Amino acid sequence: MTQYLSFVPLFQNILGSNYVFTDDESREKYGRDETENLLFLPAIVIKPRTAEELSAVMKICNENKIPVTARGAGTGLSGGALPHRGGVLVSFERMNSILEIDERNLQVTTEPGVITEVLQNAVKEKGLFYPPDPSSRGSCFIGGNIAENSGGPKAVKYGVVKDYVLNLQVVLANGEIIWTGSNVLKNSTGYNLTQLIVGSEGTLGLVTKIVLKLLPHPKFDLLMLAPFTDIEKAGAAVSAVFRAGFTPSAMELVEIDALKIVSRFVESTAVPVGDDVAAHLIVEVDGNHMETLMSEMEAISAILAEYDCGEIFFADDAVQKAALWKLRRRVAEAVKIDGYTIEEDTVVPRAELPALIKGVKKLGKEYDFEVVCYGHAGDGNLHIRIKKSGSIYSLNNPDVIPALRALFKLVKALGGTISGEHGIGLVQKEYMDIVFDPITIELMRGIKKTFDPNNILNPGKIFDI
Amino acid sequence: MTQYLSFVPLFQNILGSNYVFTDDESREKYGRDETENLLFLPAIVIKPRTAEELSAVMKICNENKIPVTARGAGTGLSGGALPHRGGVLVSFERMNSILEIDERNLQVTTEPGVITEVLQNAVKEKGLFYPPDPSSRGSCFIGGNIAENSGGPKAVKYGVVKDYVLNLQVVLANGEIIWTGSNVLKNSTGYNLTQLIVGSEGTLGLVTKIVLKLLPHPKFDLLMLAPFTDIEKAGAAVSAVFRAGFTPSAMELVEIDALKIVSRFVESTAVPVGDDVAAHLIVEVDGNHMETLMSEMEAISAILAEYDCGEIFFADDAVQKAALWKLRRRVAEAVKIDGYTIEEDTVVPRAELPALIKGVKKLGKEYDFEVVCYGHAGDGNLHIRIKKSGSIYSLNNPDVIPALRALFKLVKALGGTISGEHGIGLVQKEYMDIVFDPITIELMRGIKKTFDPNNILNPGKIFDI
Repeated sequence: MTQYLSFVPLFQNILGSNYVFTDDESREKYGRDETENLLFLPAIVIKPRTAEELSAVMKICNENKIPVTARGAGTGLSGGALPHRGGVLVSFERMNSILEIDERNLQVTTEPGVITEVLQNAVKEKGLFYPPDPSSRGSCFIGGNIAENSGGPKAVKYGVVKDYVLNLQVVLANGEIIWTGSNVLKNSTGYNLTQLIVGSEGTLGLVTKIVLKLLPHPKFDLLMLAPFTDIEKAGAAVSAVFRAGFTPSAMELVEIDALKIVSRFVESTAVPVGDDVAAHLIVEVDGNHMETLMSEMEAISAILAEYDCGEIFFADDAVQKAALWKLRRRVAEAVKIDGYTIEEDTVVPRAELPALIKGVKKLGKEYDFEVVCYGHAGDGNLHIRIKKSGSIYSLNNPDVIPALRALFKLVKALGGTISGEHGIGLVQKEYMDIVFDPITIELMRGIKKTFDPNNILNPGKIFDI
Repeated sequence: MTQYLSFVPLFQNILGSNYVFTDDESREKYGRDETENLLFLPAIVIKPRTAEELSAVMKICNENKIPVTARGAGTGLSGGALPHRGGVLVSFERMNSILEIDERNLQVTTEPGVITEVLQNAVKEKGLFYPPDPSSRGSCFIGGNIAENSGGPKAVKYGVVKDYVLNLQVVLANGEIIWTGSNVLKNSTGYNLTQLIVGSEGTLGLVTKIVLKLLPHPKFDLLMLAPFTDIEKAGAAVSAVFRAGFTPSAMELVEIDALKIVSRFVESTAVPVGDDVAAHLIVEVDGNHMETLMSEMEAISAILAEYDCGEIFFADDAVQKAALWKLRRRVAEAVKIDGYTIEEDTVVPRAELPALIKGVKKLGKEYDFEVVCYGHAGDGNLHIRIKKSGSIYSLNNPDVIPALRALFKLVKALGGTISGEHGIGLVQKEYMDIVFDPITIELMRGIKKTFDPNNILNPGKIFDI
């Protein structure tokens, strides 16, 4: 790590000495994210305030081939922000201003270090709506959401991050600053660099300004919780709702074991846990006409009943809704602490959910691991958490690779893919060959080389060069 | 052109002799599209039936550096399908099967040569909805829509083509066949090659299969026509509607001169043309609850009234709606025949429409051309048609370039860009430097080189290598 220390004075010149860190505490803090229990120490942590500062740093890093890893709030689940090759870690925490809420055009321009929920609340005060809401929205940064193309419960109706990004300011590997597009709703002007940067996990450029599309905020929402005795039937009920022409604003699945763990974890009794319950569906509808929503909820309830759903609980008020969402949002954290360290982010076409759930359970028996499922059933995005008693598993543990390869092959066979919203990052690149052939990965490598010929931006993430 | 004739027997071996054409009539037919009055003759026209056939042809073209231009139905307005460097023209007209309508997952898999309206009707029969509906939907191919990232009136509520494309099968320049993604609603697995191909105008690969997301078809729609005495006020009314929290399923603007021309052209009296009318807004709402739609229409009418809108005409039945939409859809064709040969596809943030309209009129006076505006006001996408009495103008006519550069600089200054839905193609690449700096275009060139190192796929479109 000492190899890069000679650059510290240069970085201090650019950023000020208060914003360049080489102490052990900082390096350890910025060497972790929420991916398993992994730790990789960066040589230097920097905290730029502007794109211009970052540009000046990047010129030095590029000339000297210093690896650079971008980091939002460190809530990632695929290791995208882990500086596994050391070098410089860029924390965006000081680039945390919402620059403009454009009420005339329903747009917001923001810096990447703004907490997603802070951004959502700021636009909500103007009656506007930024829907993508990862479970970590209370702490994650919007910039990290862009990097991983995050989703969340509302994606099923409103789409994911990529569907809201109109334009990005990006600092390239060589320090040049570009805008990827324009602040418009439709754009057929050249290649879609905006969409190429979204989800590229900090490997193509560093996002320093973000222009997002907003919607009018819906006036009402209704929430219900439906217990099922058979998790596969719960999965089947999900696609039945959409086939019947309804598009709920959330359609979440939580397996009973996950619910028990999180209920203990947050000391909540919001959901009574019946003995014969295998899983719950959380269903939300939203809109501007309460009567319409009530009739939709009624119709959806009738569909769920056809799949042996138990007594449905309707959240009566904001307090009950908040309690229910709190449980759902904290599942990932709770089950991780309970020992389910490996989190998968599989996604399949919605109607294949029952087949995926069945297959996952079978693989658990075959490979002797415990498994618990939850996630965004409405869009086929199932989080699968794995543990094995007595061991703390890592995704790249040789013992676990065969089981996960079998899982991803199943996902692929069902028409799905590895990651719906977490990204590939460090821990899933081992499996990219299952869903992409070598020619396709070679095209991605070519794009990477075009943007970053010296391979300094988050090198070794998504794929190796 | 004779330089490529030696390859004809090879292509005939692959495709059968009935599907390789070198006669003058075919070459002329496939040497035009709907862009101005341009004509460029290809050396050879081929009509493959399968990706495998096309792959075999591409291997030969790549080895011999033969330019290859893909063509859908030839309805393009930016010259994307014009074979301006001769070589091989690939017509997708025989790849015209809808392969699967997946009602379980609300998806359709189709070949590129299917007419967009045919596809829409086929999924509608199953209660499903593919919203993007360019004016040419009765004749254009879905593959061409992918190439240009087409829009249409419904984009304002439902988004453009890119928002529906889940996965693409692509034949690369070297003949390799890849899939860009998976058939899933969320995907954070590697770079978004799907979105890179959408809108790339046949310069990165040839799309041979398309997987599209579908929605449940809305049950009802309501349509109204609102006359305005002041076109800038009509533009201002548009953004007021969205600011008030409404999202119409169409919000179209037609300037009175365009309406008069198209009314004559289709011999329609669907819209009475008052003397003091400057422009009309066509407003549609859709959904599953008629009462909700009626109350939305009422509220929107009240907003329009604040901007000096005249008496609103409500289309009472399917016949009236069809008559109104027919007028709107045929504007482009009618005004072109009337001599407005140059069509611009400018797009600005919605609230900047009045400023754009005002600026356009001013530029018309300054540069002495006639101008008529219409388009998708709801998403800021204004088509600007230009003519000058006595001359047939082409976009790359040296006389017209200064006026258009001034127009695009205005668009850029308003936060907009050159093309919202037609693409850059051949005739607008002259202006790319106004909206992208050289570094950004160089990145696009790098991507092009990665996909097509020999620069054989639609060379010289969007930008020069």
